[in-house]
Amino acid sequence: MRICIAQTRVRAAALEQNFAAMKAAIAKARADGADLIVFPEMALPGYFLGDAWERPHFLKACQEYAQQLAALSNDVAILFGSVGVDPTARNEDGRIRKYNAAFVAQSGRFLMNEKLQLPFWPKALLPNYREFDDTRHFHDLRKLALERGVAPEQLLNPAMIRLRNGTTVRLGIGLCEDAWDEDYAFKPYSALCSAQHKPDLLINLSCSPFTLGKQSRRKKLFCSMSTKAGLPVVYVNAVGSQNVGKTIFSFDGQSGIYLGQDFFPTAEPFAECSETIDPAEITSNKTPIRMSEAPSERIQEIQIALEKGLSFVREEWQLRKVVVGVSGGIDSALSAVLHARVFGAENVTCVNLPSQYNSQLTINAAHQLAKNLNCAYASLSIEESVKLTLRQLEDARQQGVEIPATLNPLVAENIQARDRGSRLVASVSSALGAVFPCNANKSEMTVGYSTLYGDHAGYLAPLGDLWKGDVYALAAHYNSTIYGKEIIPQDTLNVKPSAELSPQQDITKGLGDPLHYPYHDELFRLWVEEWNRHDCESVIDAWMKGTLAAWLSPEAAFYLSQNFKTQEAFEADVRRWWSAYVGMGAFKRVQAPPVLALTRRAFGFDHREAVGLHLARGK
Amino acid sequence: MRICIAQTRVRAAALEQNFAAMKAAIAKARADGADLIVFPEMALPGYFLGDAWERPHFLKACQEYAQQLAALSNDVAILFGSVGVDPTARNEDGRIRKYNAAFVAQSGRFLMNEKLQLPFWPKALLPNYREFDDTRHFHDLRKLALERGVAPEQLLNPAMIRLRNGTTVRLGIGLCEDAWDEDYAFKPYSALCSAQHKPDLLINLSCSPFTLGKQSRRKKLFCSMSTKAGLPVVYVNAVGSQNVGKTIFSFDGQSGIYLGQDFFPTAEPFAECSETIDPAEITSNKTPIRMSEAPSERIQEIQIALEKGLSFVREEWQLRKVVVGVSGGIDSALSAVLHARVFGAENVTCVNLPSQYNSQLTINAAHQLAKNLNCAYASLSIEESVKLTLRQLEDARQQGVEIPATLNPLVAENIQARDRGSRLVASVSSALGAVFPCNANKSEMTVGYSTLYGDHAGYLAPLGDLWKGDVYALAAHYNSTIYGKEIIPQDTLNVKPSAELSPQQDITKGLGDPLHYPYHDELFRLWVEEWNRHDCESVIDAWMKGTLAAWLSPEAAFYLSQNFKTQEAFEADVRRWWSAYVGMGAFKRVQAPPVLALTRRAFGFDHREAVGLHLARGK
Repeated sequence: MRICIAQTRVRAAALEQNFAAMKAAIAKARADGADLIVFPEMALPGYFLGDAWERPHFLKACQEYAQQLAALSNDVAILFGSVGVDPTARNEDGRIRKYNAAFVAQSGRFLMNEKLQLPFWPKALLPNYREFDDTRHFHDLRKLALERGVAPEQLLNPAMIRLRNGTTVRLGIGLCEDAWDEDYAFKPYSALCSAQHKPDLLINLSCSPFTLGKQSRRKKLFCSMSTKAGLPVVYVNAVGSQNVGKTIFSFDGQSGIYLGQDFFPTAEPFAECSETIDPAEITSNKTPIRMSEAPSERIQEIQIALEKGLSFVREEWQLRKVVVGVSGGIDSALSAVLHARVFGAENVTCVNLPSQYNSQLTINAAHQLAKNLNCAYASLSIEESVKLTLRQLEDARQQGVEIPATLNPLVAENIQARDRGSRLVASVSSALGAVFPCNANKSEMTVGYSTLYGDHAGYLAPLGDLWKGDVYALAAHYNSTIYGKEIIPQDTLNVKPSAELSPQQDITKGLGDPLHYPYHDELFRLWVEEWNRHDCESVIDAWMKGTLAAWLSPEAAFYLSQNFKTQEAFEADVRRWWSAYVGMGAFKRVQAPPVLALTRRAFGFDHREAVGLHLARGK
Repeated sequence: MRICIAQTRVRAAALEQNFAAMKAAIAKARADGADLIVFPEMALPGYFLGDAWERPHFLKACQEYAQQLAALSNDVAILFGSVGVDPTARNEDGRIRKYNAAFVAQSGRFLMNEKLQLPFWPKALLPNYREFDDTRHFHDLRKLALERGVAPEQLLNPAMIRLRNGTTVRLGIGLCEDAWDEDYAFKPYSALCSAQHKPDLLINLSCSPFTLGKQSRRKKLFCSMSTKAGLPVVYVNAVGSQNVGKTIFSFDGQSGIYLGQDFFPTAEPFAECSETIDPAEITSNKTPIRMSEAPSERIQEIQIALEKGLSFVREEWQLRKVVVGVSGGIDSALSAVLHARVFGAENVTCVNLPSQYNSQLTINAAHQLAKNLNCAYASLSIEESVKLTLRQLEDARQQGVEIPATLNPLVAENIQARDRGSRLVASVSSALGAVFPCNANKSEMTVGYSTLYGDHAGYLAPLGDLWKGDVYALAAHYNSTIYGKEIIPQDTLNVKPSAELSPQQDITKGLGDPLHYPYHDELFRLWVEEWNRHDCESVIDAWMKGTLAAWLSPEAAFYLSQNFKTQEAFEADVRRWWSAYVGMGAFKRVQAPPVLALTRRAFGFDHREAVGLHLARGK
């Protein structure tokens, strides 16, 4: 049996483009003598479409394109993911009944799923964590079972297709989460395999975003499935970029065949590729096609995912030019490098926006960075405008507005940041027909250490899912490994992180940010990224019990021991940042740009929060 | 049987405050001789907490406070909503197993739900539409039934409490959505009532946000339930404000008793109130306590909901002062009125920010408005700063940045808007320790007719769920009905809506916005608010079939017939705005301030969307 594993680029709601990509893959599969071609979950409509699923006209168009795909199936059987509509029923919200489903077409027609009397195989397990929103839009096999008063396993059955040589094959089909069944009472693949007619082959159609470390989890899961079932598992995942508004996900593909303890990739990660192979011909000595080595180092995995992800975004949104505000600091330097690599240096303009508080060291570093990258560069001062704004505040006071004669120092700091972001960078971008990124990292976004409409502004926060420590590591990786020379000036890597907005942040005196990143990154990670999350109180409990240090790296634990000698000192710091995280941090994140997701918990749609919880008592 | 219906203020995650409110209500109920006190769904922890549900320490605190409540139940039985934790199991996402549950305490202890062997009654139907996120966090009765291999009705049973007179009463308990069962195959209240031991009384604990027109739907639903069951239905809903980050919901309470075709409110809408009554003593001639008339007019309902909602936000977020940028136009005028009413005129500063393009008419109207409201007022010009920015763009060009010699007119327009929002209004607010609202309405937010970091900026968009037509109607309502005089200057009501950012928007020549709101409001509403949504293509289909006019008001239909004589003209307009809606509109909404929700579909969490769909082909 020859199977074409079609790792296609799946674009959100782009039926015409997705159909064209699938049609081309089918033609290639036919030329390669495939019996069956398998596409990803939701390969036709795309997956993260928001409430576009509520548009009957769109659903109709999905069905029409699906029929056109079925018509292409004469000699090659086609298995693909799309939306399954049942016009005879309603969703539980009263909207049109729809499923996240797999369709199988042969001889120009869809196979009927006899147990359900529907022309598709619905997903049984709908993920409802992280970025996934399946239960909002789709009915599922378990709900069908409840409606019909039967056990869900009674509604499972393989799809039977005919090979070119006339034999019949039973496909055990599941969609993405159906395989990730650890915490579900119902386990679809196990149920399929223990049924009367066991499948000949297991197939998983996925639309599964990249996450750091996920590929090793996939391997463990599907190898275990293959071993238990004694069957090959065909895994087909999409590539491309889809977003849920506030968070942008990259799809890494990593399609191939799992057989026993081995994985045989059939495509490069993040690349469109369809490849026809016969699972029976795989041996553990022979990888079907030659693949790049999967990156072994975390920082290399981050670098590839960031560049591929940003490159997808550039293509999807049809962006051409970028303006990066470069301060001479580490975040904007890394952002400039990343944009220069993805957009091309000729499409990147670096703008430095000094005030009286910027040191010559960082100003020079910013200029040197632009030279090293071969990007256009301009230096535009904010001094005159900031003075004008302060004069106009005085003017307002004279008109009777009760502005204090002595302003809180934060007022002037934020005026500078907004002047840079919303006045100059935004205007230069607008004049060039460009976009500008928000260079905030995850540590800053956690506690809202940024100015709304200032450095918080931008079309995207490409570093918004990277802790400050990772920002440094990635910057060093570019210099040492990727370029093998000092592209990011060493001064930028050495200088104390600082916003340089006041004399209290004067780097020439060693002053700067109020965060000690090697420690606070790890503290924040406990709050933000743990699956069962820590909070202010649980961290204080742990400190009092003496167990906190064990959760930290040796470096962070040492800082902890050296800097917080008393409970009072420790609590004051923790409470300050917790309050910032759920207080101003949350308030600012509501208006933050989209974040490019890398970790299991990026800000945005998978970090749901209410504004104002810092004011709740007894939380 | 005397029941205290406790319509409490429920604050998100504020265990201490919520507990205190409940404790006070219990003391009052005891004094009033109640047998039972009933609180809303999630009365103890709050409901819209985002991923705070993932914090084990918070869950533990919820359980501890719940135990303290149980301890108060000696002579009065206590029924309240909170989170039910089952330490022996896991959620399907691997996190701690938890339920949205009702707890019943009597004689100092929780009653055991015998059929489940859990000390609470879990919600059976979890809403997963609009703002509701229950399925992300909570397990439910239906999933329990699947796990245990039984039908869900077999897991239902009433809670039995003992009255002061010694008799036993069977309470049929449900939580919010359990009553809204129209599109669910499983109907918990019907199943409860048709079981062997029918309840003596039905109770619904809700945490159900205000929505325009919802009270009439509630009445229909619960009257029907009461009639069918032949039982009184006790309905207890929270008051206050909770938010899901991007969208802020007000809770209107409207608690009371449904009996046959009648509703007997026991509390004013939006007000904290607990009242003890005996359902058996209600007759249709006697309302238990004297209530205000529910508003009969839509515009009055909007006015009350906006003021109550904003007032809750002010309290929850502990806001004191507001700066409103007033242009002389209708949106900022209405925003100023609203803020003056809720915050007090002494806490509101109006700032007018003229450029060369602002007419004397609107400048005067802005000043007059501030005078009418008795608010502080200042006029600060943006001319000097805008010129400076343009000079700095020229400076960048001379430094080699390829800025075109002739700028796209939009560049200068957006510079003005950002100069107002991010430079002046933000700085005045910051200096005063105030916040400033975004005055955008729903029509503008739909198509992104605003400038990011300009008029799009603010702590909240209080008018963001009001179509432009409603903005006019509400402004007129304030003048005519609430004040009985011209608070909002008639010029503001009369002048053509315009951003006044260029000679092309010169109101003195009758020029202004590119939208004809009485028509476009209704077009946009088809896309945004229909339960099964229209889209660009379905509207064009309808136009071609001649059915579009039937969906519009006579005024909008007349505009349609007069202005789009050809399909080409009609399509060009529809496609322009559709593209703006899913394109720049979506991009800007990601960074929009929170919206105060009024309708069944406010922007934010209940309007999920992916950015960039306007570029997808075949959508």
